[in-house]
Amino acid sequence: MAVESKVNRQATCSAPVNIAVIKYWGKRDEKLILPTNSSLSATLDQADLKTTTSVALSSEFDSDRLWLNGKEESITNPRLQNVLQKIRSLASERAQTDEEKAVLDAHVHIVSVNNFPTAAGLASSASGYACMVYTLAQVYGVTDYELSKIARVGSGSACRSMYGGWVAWNMGTRDDGDDSFAEQTHLADHWPGMKILILVVSDRKKGTSSTSGMGTSVRTSELLQHRITEVVPKRMAAIKEAIEARDFAQFGEITMRDSNQFHAVCLDTYPPIFYMNDTSKAVVQMVTQYNTMKGEVKAAYTFDAGPNAVIYAMEDAMAEIASLTSHFFPSTTPDTFFRGTTTAPPAPSAELLSHFTIAQQPEDSLQYGINTQPGPGPQVLTDEECLLDSSGLPKATSA
Amino acid sequence: MAVESKVNRQATCSAPVNIAVIKYWGKRDEKLILPTNSSLSATLDQADLKTTTSVALSSEFDSDRLWLNGKEESITNPRLQNVLQKIRSLASERAQTDEEKAVLDAHVHIVSVNNFPTAAGLASSASGYACMVYTLAQVYGVTDYELSKIARVGSGSACRSMYGGWVAWNMGTRDDGDDSFAEQTHLADHWPGMKILILVVSDRKKGTSSTSGMGTSVRTSELLQHRITEVVPKRMAAIKEAIEARDFAQFGEITMRDSNQFHAVCLDTYPPIFYMNDTSKAVVQMVTQYNTMKGEVKAAYTFDAGPNAVIYAMEDAMAEIASLTSHFFPSTTPDTFFRGTTTAPPAPSAELLSHFTIAQQPEDSLQYGINTQPGPGPQVLTDEECLLDSSGLPKATSA
Repeated sequence: MAVESKVNRQATCSAPVNIAVIKYWGKRDEKLILPTNSSLSATLDQADLKTTTSVALSSEFDSDRLWLNGKEESITNPRLQNVLQKIRSLASERAQTDEEKAVLDAHVHIVSVNNFPTAAGLASSASGYACMVYTLAQVYGVTDYELSKIARVGSGSACRSMYGGWVAWNMGTRDDGDDSFAEQTHLADHWPGMKILILVVSDRKKGTSSTSGMGTSVRTSELLQHRITEVVPKRMAAIKEAIEARDFAQFGEITMRDSNQFHAVCLDTYPPIFYMNDTSKAVVQMVTQYNTMKGEVKAAYTFDAGPNAVIYAMEDAMAEIASLTSHFFPSTTPDTFFRGTTTAPPAPSAELLSHFTIAQQPEDSLQYGINTQPGPGPQVLTDEECLLDSSGLPKATSA
Repeated sequence: MAVESKVNRQATCSAPVNIAVIKYWGKRDEKLILPTNSSLSATLDQADLKTTTSVALSSEFDSDRLWLNGKEESITNPRLQNVLQKIRSLASERAQTDEEKAVLDAHVHIVSVNNFPTAAGLASSASGYACMVYTLAQVYGVTDYELSKIARVGSGSACRSMYGGWVAWNMGTRDDGDDSFAEQTHLADHWPGMKILILVVSDRKKGTSSTSGMGTSVRTSELLQHRITEVVPKRMAAIKEAIEARDFAQFGEITMRDSNQFHAVCLDTYPPIFYMNDTSKAVVQMVTQYNTMKGEVKAAYTFDAGPNAVIYAMEDAMAEIASLTSHFFPSTTPDTFFRGTTTAPPAPSAELLSHFTIAQQPEDSLQYGINTQPGPGPQVLTDEECLLDSSGLPKATSA
């Protein structure tokens, strides 16, 4: 029995995760999510980490609805409402035909899934909001707008997931946020051989949310103001030059210093915020001793608002880092420890190990590693990949 | 058989440890040990933590010699030589009688012991150098000089151990260091009921020495300059006012913020320095949640260049903190865990515990606690307490 589709319009898209090397920490406007400093990130390959979102729009739907990772969620979240409202008002400004006007009264069903466990503490709000905005824009026909400004009001760092490769988020100075947007500085293939390793730390404790943490930092850290006005502007310029010149030593040093300073500001917050733990610290020491051995910065760590480490390195150095990681952070499931694009690394040589003074960490201090690299921005997928069925409800496989 | 004493002059003194609440971190002159900011500390009661030093001077000694904690050590350490040279040149300027001039050519034997394990990572160089300078000054008859300036060239924070109670180290601005000295701001009994608890963390790993760490911070931390010029001068004034007014909430907040900022600067150093570990962090969280429960700052943590915690609190609050510590940091030897002035605390009530969300830490994460309080400065002891025998060698009991 053929079912007539209730859906008037639909689209399915995917969007990537990004990892900042110049960190975003502090808002000058909580509602518009305008930052106190610019930031810069690499967008990660979607083979390893992505969000996929389908949006259906139908005059027959009774209300807007949302399913995240197989579970229906309330759509009343203010940030989600801000995003929907902005896309619809953009569509409204442009509506000319009767069909375009009718679309404004119709409701949407949104289904979104991640190909990675949200429990791992990887920033899923960036890829999540980027994907939602990108997909809504397809459905509402507003893809020519600077969509990163809409993603930004969902989750600040989501604006950077609207582009592939290397992406800067310019803080802007306007009160209405119109000059606070992301832009690609370099394509994903600009720097051949660049690899990124995510090390997921086994720590189930819920830390301070980044929204609440950065609010407390802005109010209480005396060092944050100095970072905002004196340090970040110079670093933004310097890291763009380092990426342009493919100068890893320069890129890596700025990346590590900026991660250190972000966590320093968290510690200078009152009461202090600790995102890094003893396992994170051991990763820092492993990378530091690796660079000391090489006599040059060949690998760079960075930590977001949690204990997980992300390491940037060129392919050869990354092979050694993976090997050292498997030694210093022993796993009870070594064969499945490294996910993504490579297989399990060989054990490090005694000669290599002789350069290190750090202790082996307790078994399973790290949960697993993901080998990845810079990748492209959001993608429009085919109808075959749609997560909704013809009645506008999640397909069984998406639940 | 009576032995005629070879010793021409001798003295025995004790000197205290101090714990800074405004932290010293950074030198503007490595040799004279001139700091980049002023600092302020409480001197601790010597019942719990002290150094005792005997100095004998004799024309019959062949060379200067030094015994530390029962073991003869080389006296060629440049800082030790600086201290000896400064005391002797002071004595030389003043020498008038033949006896006074003869003393300048004689050698000294120095014996020094701590009443606490040096392995615990408590700052023994402060009490050690303070005691050596104080005792040498007795022997050389130069006790009227501002001796804190000489202690300072042995170990910066030693200058603060030259006084009891609350002590400020004024950074000074002169190149010769003549205006960089310690002075007592308040007597030890100024603030009745003030208690200090030292929590020794079980972590045998040797961290970055403070001398090398602060050198790297001065060279690499962009935030340290802001701390030096903008933050510390205001805090020095504010904490003196808080101590003067016996305003614990104000005193405690400044103390915690300054400890946080010192460790933030360490993290902003490149490569970063981590002194606090996961156990330190758990102490911070326990104190933070305690203050939240009280609706006011009733206890304050501070951490020096290592993982050990020091907690300041008034007597009643300290009783609760001790009780909470015994719960959240379980010990396999609870009866001997708390050393110093009190006995083992009672277990906390279920009602008290209901205000806390932190987890119990692994057994013996803390090694032991020392209950102490502000106390007086260096003391001249009697000949009976001398650590040297009549031949000018360490007594067997000191070895």
